[in-house]
Amino acid sequence: MLRVKFVPQNREIVVENGENLLEVARKAEIFIDAPCNGNGVCGKCKVKILEGKIDTEKSRHIKDEEWNEGYILACNSKVIEDVVIEIPSNASSAMHGMKIEDLSGKREHEIFEKSKQKLSENGMEFKTYVKKDFIKLDPPTLDDNISDFERIKRHLRNHLGYNQVFCRLPMLRKISSLIREADFEVTITHIPRGEGKTTIINMEKGNTTDRLYGVALDIGTTSVAACLVDLYGGTLVAKASSGNAQIKYGADVINRIIYSTRGNGLEELNNAIINETINPLLRKMYKDSGISKDEVVSFIAAGNTTMSHLFLGVYPDYLRMEPYIPAFVKSPFIKASELEIAVNSETFIYLVPSVASYVGGDITAGVLASGIWASDENILFIDLGTNGEIVFGNREFLMTCACSAGPAFEGGEISCGMRAAGGAIEEVKIERDTYEPKISVIGDEKPAGICGSGIIDLICEMMLSGLIDRRGKLVKGLGTSRVRFDEHGIGEYVIVFKEEYKLEKDIAITEVDIDNFIRAKAAIYSGVNTLLSGLGMDFTMIDKIYIAGGIGNSLDIGNSIKIGMLPDIEQDKISYIGNSSLMGCYLTLMSEDARHKLEEVANHMTYVELSVEPGYMDEFVSACFLPHTDIEKFPSVEQLLRR
Amino acid sequence: MLRVKFVPQNREIVVENGENLLEVARKAEIFIDAPCNGNGVCGKCKVKILEGKIDTEKSRHIKDEEWNEGYILACNSKVIEDVVIEIPSNASSAMHGMKIEDLSGKREHEIFEKSKQKLSENGMEFKTYVKKDFIKLDPPTLDDNISDFERIKRHLRNHLGYNQVFCRLPMLRKISSLIREADFEVTITHIPRGEGKTTIINMEKGNTTDRLYGVALDIGTTSVAACLVDLYGGTLVAKASSGNAQIKYGADVINRIIYSTRGNGLEELNNAIINETINPLLRKMYKDSGISKDEVVSFIAAGNTTMSHLFLGVYPDYLRMEPYIPAFVKSPFIKASELEIAVNSETFIYLVPSVASYVGGDITAGVLASGIWASDENILFIDLGTNGEIVFGNREFLMTCACSAGPAFEGGEISCGMRAAGGAIEEVKIERDTYEPKISVIGDEKPAGICGSGIIDLICEMMLSGLIDRRGKLVKGLGTSRVRFDEHGIGEYVIVFKEEYKLEKDIAITEVDIDNFIRAKAAIYSGVNTLLSGLGMDFTMIDKIYIAGGIGNSLDIGNSIKIGMLPDIEQDKISYIGNSSLMGCYLTLMSEDARHKLEEVANHMTYVELSVEPGYMDEFVSACFLPHTDIEKFPSVEQLLRR
Repeated sequence: MLRVKFVPQNREIVVENGENLLEVARKAEIFIDAPCNGNGVCGKCKVKILEGKIDTEKSRHIKDEEWNEGYILACNSKVIEDVVIEIPSNASSAMHGMKIEDLSGKREHEIFEKSKQKLSENGMEFKTYVKKDFIKLDPPTLDDNISDFERIKRHLRNHLGYNQVFCRLPMLRKISSLIREADFEVTITHIPRGEGKTTIINMEKGNTTDRLYGVALDIGTTSVAACLVDLYGGTLVAKASSGNAQIKYGADVINRIIYSTRGNGLEELNNAIINETINPLLRKMYKDSGISKDEVVSFIAAGNTTMSHLFLGVYPDYLRMEPYIPAFVKSPFIKASELEIAVNSETFIYLVPSVASYVGGDITAGVLASGIWASDENILFIDLGTNGEIVFGNREFLMTCACSAGPAFEGGEISCGMRAAGGAIEEVKIERDTYEPKISVIGDEKPAGICGSGIIDLICEMMLSGLIDRRGKLVKGLGTSRVRFDEHGIGEYVIVFKEEYKLEKDIAITEVDIDNFIRAKAAIYSGVNTLLSGLGMDFTMIDKIYIAGGIGNSLDIGNSIKIGMLPDIEQDKISYIGNSSLMGCYLTLMSEDARHKLEEVANHMTYVELSVEPGYMDEFVSACFLPHTDIEKFPSVEQLLRR
Repeated sequence: MLRVKFVPQNREIVVENGENLLEVARKAEIFIDAPCNGNGVCGKCKVKILEGKIDTEKSRHIKDEEWNEGYILACNSKVIEDVVIEIPSNASSAMHGMKIEDLSGKREHEIFEKSKQKLSENGMEFKTYVKKDFIKLDPPTLDDNISDFERIKRHLRNHLGYNQVFCRLPMLRKISSLIREADFEVTITHIPRGEGKTTIINMEKGNTTDRLYGVALDIGTTSVAACLVDLYGGTLVAKASSGNAQIKYGADVINRIIYSTRGNGLEELNNAIINETINPLLRKMYKDSGISKDEVVSFIAAGNTTMSHLFLGVYPDYLRMEPYIPAFVKSPFIKASELEIAVNSETFIYLVPSVASYVGGDITAGVLASGIWASDENILFIDLGTNGEIVFGNREFLMTCACSAGPAFEGGEISCGMRAAGGAIEEVKIERDTYEPKISVIGDEKPAGICGSGIIDLICEMMLSGLIDRRGKLVKGLGTSRVRFDEHGIGEYVIVFKEEYKLEKDIAITEVDIDNFIRAKAAIYSGVNTLLSGLGMDFTMIDKIYIAGGIGNSLDIGNSIKIGMLPDIEQDKISYIGNSSLMGCYLTLMSEDARHKLEEVANHMTYVELSVEPGYMDEFVSACFLPHTDIEKFPSVEQLLRR
């Protein structure tokens, strides 16, 4: 048995000879970012040996200088003797101080009020499907000796008009002791379902009819956001968000699906989302609000189709393999106890229905929240998260597709990329004369990397300042030390020199990174173009564009057009609407009618599989340029570049 | 840590200083009969110290001679050093070779055919509620890429007319891999519930529509009987029975209820019935028949109200305390996985509804099987098990009550009593001149004790031969060594001298035992009497008496009348119908209509609480005589006694 010690956490763990260092760190609950899931591809799991030897190989991600200092990739290293390992701050930073959109801002409040209004304009009530009633039972006697459950049923029949009352075994087990402790005065929480039927899901001593709570939850591939809601008034009682703990098994859905196929992979991923992510968020909210787990009797969650599968523990591998088939789009009836979610064990877990393999419940919820379904105008909805999903339509029709944009908008596949967390460069300007950058960083921290909105700014500014050409290649001979080329001739631009902030290394974007990002933005643009062309429409027919998702509200709309990610239309038609998935869940929590609308939306969305759409690949190739091969499609940018 | 070794099992267990010896035996899975649940009352947990010392006290159940040989009661002994303990054969014999009525006999077959006929005469179909269908799905393509579950739903809608198809999470988790392994040709097991709705509970590769199985189960306080049934033809594929493993926690329902209130008592009792009794029976039947657990998709169980509570893990203590209230009479919807019963995890566990605290689902099932509900004649149904329950009625009305007869009919509260297992004396005759008994013993074994039917014979024969008077007291001066009196003047009659069979001690019935038994039979008689008087009826209006339950088919009807347990009517009106509870479950398994009838029967039975019935106590006291204080009520016995 060997000892592995991690600093600065000072955590020690005993392992077998030959164990993989990344696995060891996971066992020790040391978070190391490993977006590629230990394939040695991303180079993000870099750690430093302080004492002892490790069986490892030099990777292309380790520079000679770093190698000499003891840097290795945890994923391709085996423990062969006692070691002390240092976890560099940036390797574990990604999960801390993450900037996650929730519903507490002014903008969100406005969107919520607007959505609510849209619902009521369309004849939908703002009423939750869970009810509470305070009942005073007649105590049993020798002459009136029916069973406890019959007594409750009799009361509900005679006083509230329910002639069929159900409950499940765990509820039944509680009834007898509880009604006696409460002197036969209890509050029941129940779910009426028409025709005089209702199901009791909770019972409390005394009169607690003023307390009724629910949870709305957005399960993102990268981050998870939750809010605890008072179901009477809709007040946000508490909120919480964090990274998705599944990140350690891979940054994007494809790597997670691959991980799920190995050994206990599916269980580990299910455990990571439920026990390591969602339940800690719930417990934090209970602590913040003083509300107890058992009082939470409604639960609505949304996620993309892969997240939905992993949340339910359903094998997702057929999502990844042609013809890309989900096991389900609409989840069956599930009780909280079946998934061990920390709400009342009898609570019904409602997962927002997906549309297809790569258009999930998060998009359905987003469409509900954004109100496209009720709009006379043509609205384009773009979710810029770990992938990119698009919906276009109005009250008459809804078309949707998924773009394989990858995780670039969240810093993935970019050597200096990171998520929108503390230390991420989220905005960039470049001096036209000197090529010197001006950056703004999330939180009061040293820069550690660059997030999606920062990359958009950076690439736009590099293009406008002439640092790169329209193919994304760095221009030589500009006379700045920030541009440099390696022995293979691959260029990079240094955004931050390590000396400026005493970093371990420079923060630089390479031509490879730029190329990766251009392909991501091209996927979005060509997806929109293909969807509209298929309808015989063009960009002039778009009345509004809503951007949702993890890209965050630092997104510069103008720059997004300039690099050719968004079509060249009037900027005031475009707005960022935040976490529309969470918003949709919140609305669904508050209104049973909204839930029916949600199901209708999911059923009526027409899914377009881009990969089989004629012309899509040509569109994509043409868009792999700044802003586009055909500059005439971006007249405003053409003008700007001409200057 | 101390070592306790048990012989002849040769099992050794390590325990703490001071642990209770009965508990230690349970931990070591050594079965010791302890009907009184360790209160030192029954004296049945007698064991012998072979080596070492034990902290114990002499009990009134240990004779001086036995005490000197090392006999102690396990329940009042503590381990204080390493010991070797011998378990006498009779202490653990009660659970082996138990004679349990099942459905395989000729009589049962006749009753079954008659019940079936009655159902069909009353317009009820013999059709189970679970269905199997073989389906061939269209394999998915890029153009036909709906989810796997939608694909199944589409097929069932288009080909079988179900427009709403449900399943639960564990089923959903299996679908995707299973349909692919089966090349999209699968058999679904489902439960249609009208209006085009159905719920899928199982899915198998290929065409398995010819295999559909269910289990019927009778959960007795003392013994449990099960049968595995082919749901197509009703064939009994396998059967199994054993003692109820809860016996170690107490012989009767009251002791079990008391045990359930202590520490983890409820869990232990629930575990004893499910994991130590029912699941082993199921596994035995699977082994015998070659049918697998997952193929069993229907499950019907019946038990008395306490057994029903313990089976579901519902706290039963309010059953015991005035006003004697059950938590439920009709159980909620329960899946097999919720109770960890070894059938298909999605199988619906149907527990036959009870009527009241002391009239359980076993009686409801018995009433269904006996056909009282369809009879023009007045039928009296008596279940002689651990207690005694009575139903009287016809197709117009059904009255029921529970008699607190205790466990005497199963050998409880009788010093030499035992259950109808191997070694039990089940029939007795006594020579009128010599007072010598002739016995017949169950199985090819030495006599070990006397069971219910044997006790009835014995007391009847003792009365007729003049060994006892009508109060049950032994007559002095008869000149037989079989009658003897102790220092307190309490008499006993020796049925078997230990020398005859090389037993550890004589088998003898004491005046205390006789008194206990007389009170049990009086409870039955006065219960019947009170029930009929309440209706303004008398015994002449009884057209038939059916005896059911654990008393067994060795019951001598004539002797039962002679001792005053049954009313003095024509013997050919009275018959033993065996395990009518199991029979009722079997019928319910085979016919959904029978299940509806069962619920109707449970709802319509009028429960009479004897303890509040005026005149009941007087009736009971008058019946505590052989055959009755008022001999005129037993004219045939009066004649016999006069001779």
